[in-house]
Amino acid sequence: MHRQPFKVTVIGSGNWGTTIAKVVAENTVQNPHLFNKDVNMWVFEEMIDGEKLTEIINTRHQNVKYLPGIDLPHNLIANPSLLDSVEGADILVFNVPHQFLPKIVLQLKGHVSNQVRAISCLKGFEVGAKGVQLLSSYIKDELDIQCGALSGANLAPEVAKEHWSETTVAYQLPSDFKGEGFDVDHKVLKMLFHRPYFHVNVIDDVAGISIAGALKNVVALACGFVEGLGWGNNAAAAIQRVGLGEIIKFGQMFFPESRVETYYQESAGVADLITTCSGGRNVKVAKYMSKNHVDAFQAEKELLNGQSAQGVITCKEVHEWLSTCELTEDFPLFEAVYQIVYNNMPMEQIPEMIDELEPFEVEEDDEPQ
Amino acid sequence: MHRQPFKVTVIGSGNWGTTIAKVVAENTVQNPHLFNKDVNMWVFEEMIDGEKLTEIINTRHQNVKYLPGIDLPHNLIANPSLLDSVEGADILVFNVPHQFLPKIVLQLKGHVSNQVRAISCLKGFEVGAKGVQLLSSYIKDELDIQCGALSGANLAPEVAKEHWSETTVAYQLPSDFKGEGFDVDHKVLKMLFHRPYFHVNVIDDVAGISIAGALKNVVALACGFVEGLGWGNNAAAAIQRVGLGEIIKFGQMFFPESRVETYYQESAGVADLITTCSGGRNVKVAKYMSKNHVDAFQAEKELLNGQSAQGVITCKEVHEWLSTCELTEDFPLFEAVYQIVYNNMPMEQIPEMIDELEPFEVEEDDEPQ
Repeated sequence: MHRQPFKVTVIGSGNWGTTIAKVVAENTVQNPHLFNKDVNMWVFEEMIDGEKLTEIINTRHQNVKYLPGIDLPHNLIANPSLLDSVEGADILVFNVPHQFLPKIVLQLKGHVSNQVRAISCLKGFEVGAKGVQLLSSYIKDELDIQCGALSGANLAPEVAKEHWSETTVAYQLPSDFKGEGFDVDHKVLKMLFHRPYFHVNVIDDVAGISIAGALKNVVALACGFVEGLGWGNNAAAAIQRVGLGEIIKFGQMFFPESRVETYYQESAGVADLITTCSGGRNVKVAKYMSKNHVDAFQAEKELLNGQSAQGVITCKEVHEWLSTCELTEDFPLFEAVYQIVYNNMPMEQIPEMIDELEPFEVEEDDEPQ
Repeated sequence: MHRQPFKVTVIGSGNWGTTIAKVVAENTVQNPHLFNKDVNMWVFEEMIDGEKLTEIINTRHQNVKYLPGIDLPHNLIANPSLLDSVEGADILVFNVPHQFLPKIVLQLKGHVSNQVRAISCLKGFEVGAKGVQLLSSYIKDELDIQCGALSGANLAPEVAKEHWSETTVAYQLPSDFKGEGFDVDHKVLKMLFHRPYFHVNVIDDVAGISIAGALKNVVALACGFVEGLGWGNNAAAAIQRVGLGEIIKFGQMFFPESRVETYYQESAGVADLITTCSGGRNVKVAKYMSKNHVDAFQAEKELLNGQSAQGVITCKEVHEWLSTCELTEDFPLFEAVYQIVYNNMPMEQIPEMIDELEPFEVEEDDEPQ
């Protein structure tokens, strides 16, 4: 980290990676006192009809494979070498599929100064022996660099087309913060990500936005179930309400530093939940399960070419973690989703499973009609 | 009010009135120690093909005009006389269109004991010289009876068809509470409204659920605008997020006794907002305005036979109240909706109007490219 202007590298070039790289490169060119104009984007090299993807991006300025039809800024430079792409970077923006992160981090180890600052655009967390770990914490721990997160109600194709949306960036100043002009702060992050069509709010609560971003996918599965059952809008809204409550409870229980307001006030909270429950992979898989009476894995095979809906993975991780803590009963919706996906529990039982109060003893009060 | 069993009357027989009357009558028959079996429903008498609506309901057990195709319990008794229908009632459930309430209350004055308890299912509030007044408070003040509210993510036809949904009932025990078995309490209200397909949570916060129920319609108009503009799911979610924030702020400012949790945790809060923004009259009118470049009144004329979308009325009431308080700037989304509906402000300007932070000085930092 030297004095501004800062050099920025985006690691990842899927549809969301390329979209965020576009946003960033639009801002660096407009703010030369703050940022180096050129933005490197690390691209996992692929051949497309005999041409390298990086060369296509650098000459035709389109990511024809992952974001076709969207013109990219000319100052966005595709680079097939991970280490070369991060050379001299002050700010790293991570935006790769979750499963590739460990390998990438391993490659970067020893090649990134601890003065570098990072933002993770990955959704989700790791549940392992250590408990629940945020992906931003994983990056921070592995590379010894300060790392925040970006998350929001952001279906990538809509942001790429510059339809208006909002997002949340969360970042905590590190203990060795160098001071304004010499380091990344909330103002710098706002300048890096805010666009007229992409409204950014910068906050401190990295844990809150990461938890919301991960758990929403479990809620979206439940939404898909009730939609598939034909239960209508009231039911879908009920699921989202209960889901938001369990997300908040999960945050408060395992990340007490996260703020309740983040969940109901930020784009990364309630808004991302609403967007995700109104469409996307998880809803699609769950509806398909419901309508065709197949299990999640069959649905993924038939709908996603064997790719996974994130909620299917996350609900299992959450269940295992909650089981370890003997707390599954405190999260009846998350548990219901797990039981439906992994133990063939009938999805029609969701209402009974999530009823908040003790079963109300209507039956015992009955008299013969 | 005498000892239980309590006698219940539902005032109103539109689609929501009849639906709630159905719910109530199903519960009274199952809980004879708590409630009188027979439930009166006051019906504004109409002739349907030469037959009285009350007679049709009492013989064929369907409200063919307002809830066709739904079988009603035989212990639900339609009554065309308001005063006769409330005779001897311990519990009144108000469920009439907002604009008829004053006239009904006037007729009831002097004919209802102050020992009677009431629940209002009306959405909205009165904004007048006295400021913002809850409809439940209006009933309470005018009739000198304790009055709570019922509100939730409840599209009436779905509840009528017994699709699973949730609702919130709010009620505060009166200072002259007679004790369990002798008066209405939260347990009685749960027994009165909870069904296997209609999950009820009973809380104290009458103000919170009433405010959320009224203001959601303004947010739904804004959602319709961005949908009509083709801005997609991210934008609709952003509107709902900002709208929830302004609802909470409005509640905190003018009804400090209302609880923030009510807005983001109850069916009457975030869930009703989501349901309302996913469909219904307000969204429909706003989309039509957006797509056909007509004003709200033209849209209402063409879509609703001249009936009104509630948000069109509420946004004006809210604007007038906030203007009196010189607080319009604190509620930029509500104000944007008002300006779009009443002053032809272009709806494309919503993002600029609701940007939370001070305009970020990107322009001044620009250098020539």
